[in-house]
Amino acid sequence: MPRPANPEVRRRLLAAGLDLVHEHGFAASGVKDITDAAGVPKGSFYAYFPSKEAFAAAILQHYWSDIEERLLPLLDADGSADERIARFFHALADEHESADFLLGCLVGNMSLELGGSSEPVRAELTRILDRWGEAIAGCVRSGQVGTGGIAADLGASELASVLIEAWEGAALRGKVTRSRAPYDRFETVTLPALLR
Amino acid sequence: MPRPANPEVRRRLLAAGLDLVHEHGFAASGVKDITDAAGVPKGSFYAYFPSKEAFAAAILQHYWSDIEERLLPLLDADGSADERIARFFHALADEHESADFLLGCLVGNMSLELGGSSEPVRAELTRILDRWGEAIAGCVRSGQVGTGGIAADLGASELASVLIEAWEGAALRGKVTRSRAPYDRFETVTLPALLR
Repeated sequence: MPRPANPEVRRRLLAAGLDLVHEHGFAASGVKDITDAAGVPKGSFYAYFPSKEAFAAAILQHYWSDIEERLLPLLDADGSADERIARFFHALADEHESADFLLGCLVGNMSLELGGSSEPVRAELTRILDRWGEAIAGCVRSGQVGTGGIAADLGASELASVLIEAWEGAALRGKVTRSRAPYDRFETVTLPALLR
Repeated sequence: MPRPANPEVRRRLLAAGLDLVHEHGFAASGVKDITDAAGVPKGSFYAYFPSKEAFAAAILQHYWSDIEERLLPLLDADGSADERIARFFHALADEHESADFLLGCLVGNMSLELGGSSEPVRAELTRILDRWGEAIAGCVRSGQVGTGGIAADLGASELASVLIEAWEGAALRGKVTRSRAPYDRFETVTLPALLR
């Protein structure tokens, strides 16, 4: 019989695991490191997650839900579409800066570490990147009608994808430079060029 | 006394380590995996590399020298500057496609896995990204004079950096989609928007 699930233990495993994997990467974070950080016995890990890969997918989901709740609403706030998109990416960059650019974006980190090897993680990354793309594309679309200011010769979904990809590349470089310069040039060069 | 260095053993360690780390990541590739793949005794690893991090920096150097020799010359070939830049990134994408988009770019992979934690690797990544940027910037600059076709209102170095960053983001997404779509939209949407 499966052990009774304790939502508090699951929550602690996710929170501690997210911090560890975000900082050190997936392969470098052992199950024991995660259970120690969560303050639960090592054996309890597999009562909550069928595999370490399933756990990786769960922390990605946890990470993304938080961004979706707190930051995606900026895309529906006041201002023109390009201003709202800039404000959203600026807020994301603020979060990276608050960790001294040491962590980067968990979605990007996991894409490169596990995108090529883990199907459960790849499925979760696909879902997140699609949802993220839809949110940006909705905003782009609203700027492509009337006097919204965004040229309509390119599809909104395609523009949303290149924006997200260019932003992930900026975050990647920011982890090497440990500075906001790549995020800043994404905002001042890439965004205006794509949302002309 | 240090053991006599055998360049062939060093070369085999670098080649085998590059393949393993490119496919599985740095933390997931153990020293024994690397020496087994190279067909040398485990103990010989530290005769050639003072640490696993120093080894990571050496395989990055090995990876980049190869790109520099084979692909960077495309930036100095015939055609307009924007055509030469497009041809260079197209050739890089061809290499990623030949590995079914499972590996991605080692520079990007290592930036996210080790950029935040390893100083020797971060120093090597900085050197590579700077050299890469200088090569692209030289090409951009040649397209910004006379009727070269690239607008001169933005600095060549800044444009080179955003191009490399957007390309790394495309490669990141390509590892998740396992398709050429992100590379293609980098070429058809991002490149022309930035090199207008």
